[in-house]
Amino acid sequence: MTSTNLSRSICILGLGLIGGSLMRDLAAQGVHVYGYNRSASGSRAATDDGFDASDDLTATLRRAEQDKAIIVLATPMPAIPGLLDAIIEFAPSCGITDVVSVKAAVYELIRERGLEDRYVGSHPMAGTAESGWNASRQGLFTRAAWVITYDHAADASDEWIALWTDVAHMILGVGADAIPARIGRHDAAVARVSHLVHIFAEALAIVGDNGGALAQSLAAGSFRDSTRVAGTQPSLVRAMCETNAEAVVLALDEALDLLHDARDSLAKPLPDITTLAETGYAARVRFEARHGARGESVSPVKISSRPLLRLNPGAPGWVRQLEQAETLGGRIDIF
Amino acid sequence: MTSTNLSRSICILGLGLIGGSLMRDLAAQGVHVYGYNRSASGSRAATDDGFDASDDLTATLRRAEQDKAIIVLATPMPAIPGLLDAIIEFAPSCGITDVVSVKAAVYELIRERGLEDRYVGSHPMAGTAESGWNASRQGLFTRAAWVITYDHAADASDEWIALWTDVAHMILGVGADAIPARIGRHDAAVARVSHLVHIFAEALAIVGDNGGALAQSLAAGSFRDSTRVAGTQPSLVRAMCETNAEAVVLALDEALDLLHDARDSLAKPLPDITTLAETGYAARVRFEARHGARGESVSPVKISSRPLLRLNPGAPGWVRQLEQAETLGGRIDIF
Repeated sequence: MTSTNLSRSICILGLGLIGGSLMRDLAAQGVHVYGYNRSASGSRAATDDGFDASDDLTATLRRAEQDKAIIVLATPMPAIPGLLDAIIEFAPSCGITDVVSVKAAVYELIRERGLEDRYVGSHPMAGTAESGWNASRQGLFTRAAWVITYDHAADASDEWIALWTDVAHMILGVGADAIPARIGRHDAAVARVSHLVHIFAEALAIVGDNGGALAQSLAAGSFRDSTRVAGTQPSLVRAMCETNAEAVVLALDEALDLLHDARDSLAKPLPDITTLAETGYAARVRFEARHGARGESVSPVKISSRPLLRLNPGAPGWVRQLEQAETLGGRIDIF
Repeated sequence: MTSTNLSRSICILGLGLIGGSLMRDLAAQGVHVYGYNRSASGSRAATDDGFDASDDLTATLRRAEQDKAIIVLATPMPAIPGLLDAIIEFAPSCGITDVVSVKAAVYELIRERGLEDRYVGSHPMAGTAESGWNASRQGLFTRAAWVITYDHAADASDEWIALWTDVAHMILGVGADAIPARIGRHDAAVARVSHLVHIFAEALAIVGDNGGALAQSLAAGSFRDSTRVAGTQPSLVRAMCETNAEAVVLALDEALDLLHDARDSLAKPLPDITTLAETGYAARVRFEARHGARGESVSPVKISSRPLLRLNPGAPGWVRQLEQAETLGGRIDIF
């Protein structure tokens, strides 16, 4: 599957790590892709690298409207409302997707504006603590999980199904695994495996720092790896966790229960954290088994270990297939 | 500084990841080194790789006594009392060091047996989630922090000072940074930057696993890195945390305060985790600045970023110099 199945141009708003990497991959696949970046320095960096970028939002959206392009919102959450309003004004018939790491908060903005039938949510699980165009690179999404939402599928128009299909083609075209998930399921899952990781990393970094020069000098690889994402810009961490607060609180409460149990066990005359150590070990072993072939393979060809479901968008039963893929954490292909 | 300054043979009890890597490095430096491993398969693996290893503890200790070797205890904590008793019986005049990740619990065993003047504690901050001889490798300790304790220095005999000097030479000989720290300071520091990291990793792995197949499928690099040490054998995690329980509880309480504050902020109508995100980011930036040249340098020659103090063991004021290095998290060299 290559992005040659994509039937439309792509217009990316926000050329940072994710938007920039998407632009590089799509261009490499021969897709007609252009974009906008608020800072002139960012759009100039993209232009200097040979890409089609502008810092004029209105002109970029007018061009997208003329092309019937799909617009990809690739900015942090706080910029989304303003961009949606500009799209309504200057690109009133374009399909829209986004790559924001929370989906309910974005969908609320979509619903407020009555844009449900023009919108398909998405979220690539890729990134580093770096940001900006200069951190972007081709191949960032290879075998990464890239969620595509489908809450609107049951009530969808043919136009929406065509948009959904093109967003799926875009995801597959950059080598990612397209994983269908409804908004609520997505937000609950990323609260556990991403947002909570950020909160833990911040806390660990602070407790380590409080230990002063000796503790910092003794910190080795495990501390470095566990605090890596504390190096993410605070505004990005806030945007993720605060806009997904409800799901993050549920995950955090689960974690706090485990940590309090461990604390109480350690404070006893005969400390014993067998349960935590054995349950955590078993959980990590399952994670490794599931991710087996991915990421850490020595082979240059990364093979996905996720189950694959082939589906025909809009055909009878396709929503049930999507739900099945969601339950398995499976990836889809389009036929 | 090379290990050619080491004036004695080294006898390593326990040829796992740490003991095995130490044996490889010392042998490469031309040091007379041999060892014992409880399991015959482990000692055979070492022998097959061309090293001098045995599964006969009594014979190995008798040989150490004859050589006046320094004995390195390189087993997990639970095996230490039995080994000390065997040393008292079969190697009654050898100097002793250890590489256990907690120091107060080991020193209690030393004091119970009146071995203070024959013992210098140590702890290399190196390792992986792997274990056993087959995980050992040459160069594991290059530029790693390796703590050397000195609580006994004020009351020390000339023999103890000579032993301390040789343990320092051994550490420097394998390319590690020798960092003096008293037992209490060491245990408090590693509770923050190592043991707490393990407890957090276990909790994260469990909360992620509870999210089922979808959450596991969406878990990316940050989850993988943050849960890596949950792949450590539960018995090793228990040995570390349970024997350093008092210091771990203090570090954990600090972390729990931060997490509860974050939880409360996220549960408000207008969630706001600015303080956590900004303090954590600043802490991580300081960590990176301190560790600058270490570990992630592209240069094959790793340069230490730790301050260096040169000292002459036993000379007037040397204990004050050790305290100064401890406060800075600095490394020492011997002249």
